[in-house]
Amino acid sequence: MLAEVSKVLKNTYEGQACSIARSLELIGERWTLLIVRDVFRGQRRFDAIQESLGIARNVLANRLDRLVEEEILEKRPYREHPPRYEYFLTEKGIDLWPVLVSLIKWGDKHEPFGFDGLPPVIIRHKDCEGEIDDHFTCGECGARVWARDCYVERRVPLRAAA
Amino acid sequence: MLAEVSKVLKNTYEGQACSIARSLELIGERWTLLIVRDVFRGQRRFDAIQESLGIARNVLANRLDRLVEEEILEKRPYREHPPRYEYFLTEKGIDLWPVLVSLIKWGDKHEPFGFDGLPPVIIRHKDCEGEIDDHFTCGECGARVWARDCYVERRVPLRAAA
Repeated sequence: MLAEVSKVLKNTYEGQACSIARSLELIGERWTLLIVRDVFRGQRRFDAIQESLGIARNVLANRLDRLVEEEILEKRPYREHPPRYEYFLTEKGIDLWPVLVSLIKWGDKHEPFGFDGLPPVIIRHKDCEGEIDDHFTCGECGARVWARDCYVERRVPLRAAA
Repeated sequence: MLAEVSKVLKNTYEGQACSIARSLELIGERWTLLIVRDVFRGQRRFDAIQESLGIARNVLANRLDRLVEEEILEKRPYREHPPRYEYFLTEKGIDLWPVLVSLIKWGDKHEPFGFDGLPPVIIRHKDCEGEIDDHFTCGECGARVWARDCYVERRVPLRAAA
């Protein structure tokens, strides 16, 4: 199935025995990781994601279809007439959490300008509210954590005021 | 400088106070992370990277220029006539290591087919040769590691035999 989709999207890094290349075949397209981020944030519906990202509807539909096909998201109906779906992360999707956290940590360290120098979000441990570090470990209690152990504290609004 | 380049490349995710979006503006383009991977592997010269990736020369030149401009890579001359350069990771570039490792771990866990089920590479701790886990921690001695503490053991050739 991967081969088929990739052919259409011309998004293969052919002939490389490399897990990075393979991962990027699935999630390296423009917008894809931001869609995954939005679903992590609880944006489950097409219109909410579309409004959050401001992308063309056909592009979003294409990306969502691909993410479902690759079993990173699953869709569940919430209305029958007309049919409407909500999107949820699968276990495979939830396991993208460290990729997103690493991008957050790198961005906060190296590209802090533009948010008044504040990290826009802090990732915290549910159990003790400690801050999660760049080794996915709680700075307070030392627990090694994964997506479900954490919550996000937003310090800067996602959308800048117009 | 970011704004200027982004305008040309049409690669902005505008108006989002989000470190993920900001990071992807710099490294989210097709090929960019694989170029960074190649430099991590010690491929420092244009021709070596071009051969490794099999991409168009103008695309590679564009991506390398951008990576230098964003201070993820730096270039140093190794020949004067004609001028030729080698590319090295800056500290900012080296700090992309966890993003690459997270992509490796995710790929190995969820997309293992195609390499006879073997992870193509294992990341090991220089001090004790222990395997690095998905928390950037040594499974042998428990040390929290970063890029310079590790080496890569390749188990499957990067290029499949023709």
